[in-house]
Amino acid sequence: MSSDRTNWNIKSSRTAKQAHNPIRAIVDQLKLDPNATKPLISLSIGDPTIFGNFNVDPSINQAVSKQLNSYRSNGYPPADGTLQARTAIAKEYSTPEAPLAPSDVILANGCSGALEMCVNVLCNEGSNILIPRPGFSLYASLAATRFPEKSWEADLAHLESLIDEKTSAILVNNPSNPCGSVYSREHLQAILAVAERHHVPIISDEIYCDLVFDGHTFFPMATLTSTVPILAVGGLAKKWLVPGWRVGWIMIHDRNRIFSEINDGLHQLAQIILGPNSLIQAAIPDILENTPASFFEATIQQLQDNVNLSIDRVSKIDGLVPVNPQGAMYMMVGIQTEKFNDIENDVQFSAKLLAEENVVCLPGECFNYPNYVRFVITPTIDRLEEAYKRMDEFCARHRK
Amino acid sequence: MSSDRTNWNIKSSRTAKQAHNPIRAIVDQLKLDPNATKPLISLSIGDPTIFGNFNVDPSINQAVSKQLNSYRSNGYPPADGTLQARTAIAKEYSTPEAPLAPSDVILANGCSGALEMCVNVLCNEGSNILIPRPGFSLYASLAATRFPEKSWEADLAHLESLIDEKTSAILVNNPSNPCGSVYSREHLQAILAVAERHHVPIISDEIYCDLVFDGHTFFPMATLTSTVPILAVGGLAKKWLVPGWRVGWIMIHDRNRIFSEINDGLHQLAQIILGPNSLIQAAIPDILENTPASFFEATIQQLQDNVNLSIDRVSKIDGLVPVNPQGAMYMMVGIQTEKFNDIENDVQFSAKLLAEENVVCLPGECFNYPNYVRFVITPTIDRLEEAYKRMDEFCARHRK
Repeated sequence: MSSDRTNWNIKSSRTAKQAHNPIRAIVDQLKLDPNATKPLISLSIGDPTIFGNFNVDPSINQAVSKQLNSYRSNGYPPADGTLQARTAIAKEYSTPEAPLAPSDVILANGCSGALEMCVNVLCNEGSNILIPRPGFSLYASLAATRFPEKSWEADLAHLESLIDEKTSAILVNNPSNPCGSVYSREHLQAILAVAERHHVPIISDEIYCDLVFDGHTFFPMATLTSTVPILAVGGLAKKWLVPGWRVGWIMIHDRNRIFSEINDGLHQLAQIILGPNSLIQAAIPDILENTPASFFEATIQQLQDNVNLSIDRVSKIDGLVPVNPQGAMYMMVGIQTEKFNDIENDVQFSAKLLAEENVVCLPGECFNYPNYVRFVITPTIDRLEEAYKRMDEFCARHRK
Repeated sequence: MSSDRTNWNIKSSRTAKQAHNPIRAIVDQLKLDPNATKPLISLSIGDPTIFGNFNVDPSINQAVSKQLNSYRSNGYPPADGTLQARTAIAKEYSTPEAPLAPSDVILANGCSGALEMCVNVLCNEGSNILIPRPGFSLYASLAATRFPEKSWEADLAHLESLIDEKTSAILVNNPSNPCGSVYSREHLQAILAVAERHHVPIISDEIYCDLVFDGHTFFPMATLTSTVPILAVGGLAKKWLVPGWRVGWIMIHDRNRIFSEINDGLHQLAQIILGPNSLIQAAIPDILENTPASFFEATIQQLQDNVNLSIDRVSKIDGLVPVNPQGAMYMMVGIQTEKFNDIENDVQFSAKLLAEENVVCLPGECFNYPNYVRFVITPTIDRLEEAYKRMDEFCARHRK
């Protein structure tokens, strides 16, 4: 058998065609036409490092420099990560309720790489994963999807009604992007009860763990169950403020050996993917051990200040309804479209705000949640003030 | 519709089950039982950094330090890589015959990540890729496979006979792992003629480019055709001696716009994967521009010295037939099993050599080429001498 091809006709694979970033599709729709007479203020990018006010701690740089200067951390790490890094992560995240051994930890290329491995190990074609709505757009990119949410907490009756034979996992994101919600112990337990009843494992995206504001507590999902198997994912990106370093990890919580195939499968996938940068892996023990508490406190304080300012300013703008975030780096803002002349939805709001005020924010449609917009609250206070001032004027011009 | 599952019965996906590293399966078979009375000498790991004699150039560390100390390279790079890195790579690898623009370059998580993206964009389930035999085991892991080789050069008649309607690409690895072969211009042109005749694109794994010994010349595949579309992959791993840094790239050579879907598809895939570490990406322009020529010359000289020693010593061992490598970091050695009492094949040779002499080498079966073994030639001269001395004694004991 041989080929009869008579010309070059090279199509991309279905995988490549299906791979897409829904944010990009929606942002493209905005037909970006910024008002260049005003300086750009971006409230759209979930990267705290770009504004210059959230910086990595010098101790973290020292930990990497030490490895760089050792000339001993340039080789291939083991596919699932160095034992030292896995040991340090297991130690950092072990709790009496949910102990972790180094062999329960697998390093990955960023938290998104960790999530991709979790989806790949649990899902076949035709499987579904229940993901939150509103929810981080990557979830929709990674999974064949259904949408089980109403309001910021999971609508449990709805969640349960969506589970079918093909449901491979329930994905929980806590603290959440884009909502900034931090789930209560009771709510997490209620989700676990659904998982338990239907024997569906949980993928718990905890990349924003510990980025929690006054009066709220973060509970790692795995500490609240002794029976539901959980793949928890985390990484250096947000808490240590180095998203570009691309270091994430999977923590396999499986006290009843339900995940033995999954455990093997993750290690098999790791063999193909190989892990993150060797220098950073080698620095992980120092990073986890030596980053001073004051660094984390300062991060939280600065986020909290920015949230307070944002709530104060946005709540004074008639037509916008901010939702108070409890953690993470985002604030969802409802748009009362009935109060405006010519703003029919979130995509229009974002497009016109950009065209008139050169302020960028993401329409809720990016998170499958129309008529809200998401603001990133990590810019400097100056810039936030300016952004909200422009927004105030913008809304005044468009209000009925 | 709801789930009727009454117990936890969680299977890993087909993807995870199919993911495997053939080397691991074969090495597991060796039933590792090393002779611990002698110090271990590993000739099995294709990582030049682990022996302490091949080190990154200080200028490369300085380039990374500069980024670390700038506090400005910790954020998310664009999914396909920073413009600066893509520009630097395009400039470094452009030739008059095969010019590259920055938009023709996509950064990836190591060369293996780049290869995976190439396979993913070109192949659907049921597609095949023609890969070399002997060949790097990752190719078999990544692709549904057939094996088109006899001797170190591609057997062109065989290659052509294997092409069918489902053939998505011909994968060429030059200089090659495990053979150390460096293809002549004529041989590469002959492969291109087959590709052209059947309208099958080429994936050219050129990670060992420029690691070529005296009297041989490396020709980038893309410089030898103006019509066959080529995805060439490379990275920092081997030439700059930092495999653990996980920085690879794809160079899209497509002067006739045959690859427009493939180009889009690769950018789509990049959106899901995101690229390598931001610090190293930011350092790439300095690394490509400032690494002194003397560093590369010293690397080649040291490899050449090690090859010369290896050929000299191994050719004196009756029963072993070394094949002179022309580049890369490996040497294939044939085993004349008929000369031995109790060594029936390459797997037995490797297992007994380990058990008796604590020297590790990979059986050819790992590369789909039995009755050869692969030696990595990057250990220090001392260790190589000791390894070959032990091998000499080992063969003497087992010879008829």
